Amino acid sequence: MTLQFEQFLTANAQFATAFNQGGLPMPPARHVAIVTCMDARLHPEKVLGLAIGDAHVIRNAGGRAADALRSLVISQRLLGTTEIVVLHHTDCGMLTFTNDQLAARVHADLGVDVAGQDFLPFADLAQSVRDDVALLRVSPLIPKDIPISGAIYDVDTGQVHEVVRT
Amino acid sequence: MTLQFEQFLTANAQFATAFNQGGLPMPPARHVAIVTCMDARLHPEKVLGLAIGDAHVIRNAGGRAADALRSLVISQRLLGTTEIVVLHHTDCGMLTFTNDQLAARVHADLGVDVAGQDFLPFADLAQSVRDDVALLRVSPLIPKDIPISGAIYDVDTGQVHEVVRT
Repeated sequence: MTLQFEQFLTANAQFATAFNQGGLPMPPARHVAIVTCMDARLHPEKVLGLAIGDAHVIRNAGGRAADALRSLVISQRLLGTTEIVVLHHTDCGMLTFTNDQLAARVHADLGVDVAGQDFLPFADLAQSVRDDVALLRVSPLIPKDIPISGAIYDVDTGQVHEVVRT
Repeated sequence: MTLQFEQFLTANAQFATAFNQGGLPMPPARHVAIVTCMDARLHPEKVLGLAIGDAHVIRNAGGRAADALRSLVISQRLLGTTEIVVLHHTDCGMLTFTNDQLAARVHADLGVDVAGQDFLPFADLAQSVRDDVALLRVSPLIPKDIPISGAIYDVDTGQVHEVVRT
């Protein structure tokens, strides 16, 4: 079976032929870092209108802030970003399991004991956004004058709905 | 000053007007997870030719695998991905500092002591790709029959260069 990696190399050859945006500086032009989910239906650059070079995009399962702190410290201290946007989305996989259920699955599939590990699932989508914005807001690693906003992307309509700003 | 968040909401209103790809399933259509950097110059979907719904995209400072394990377990155990691609890039911020330097900066800027914390910088780009592929390859949380490839994106040419596959 052909690897997806092979197909990526083929697609990239075409992309690179038309690429004309080299030479951009390392710091994001719009001084913002986005924390969002790895979900396949969410293409942050398209959804938010980002050009190449505009913004740091940190993505993990759920778009959880706890998992993004290391990256945010680097983004802010070394690369000059001064705003954070947390973007979760509808129909998120993190709404579909508990830590106990995932631990049982990992044990059954892989024979590994991950009981007690927090995979950061959530039961309420809007609350997950508020929780992650609050986690960053109280973190001593994030300056108090950095605006932090939270929103939800609707994977069925393409719309972003504001949840909180601070 | 206008928040970037405000500008994102404005850009999104335009995006959503033309959006017609709702109703897609949660699992990625191409059964692949990509681990890559948060860098603003790297738009993974464009670079690799991903359509909406195709692939999980996990992004953090450096595209480090250690930071992606939680997300990969969820991606593979719950959402059916069966291949991993690690993509680092030229001119990466992770090449520009040491943990001691960043800890000194955090202490100077924020008064917080993060000495001893590993922010996962690296001194050799190709080696960082090999290290992260190797970390996943030996992890008991990643099945041995999952193909894992590693590559470098050149932010100046738009080209992806293969480093390793396993």
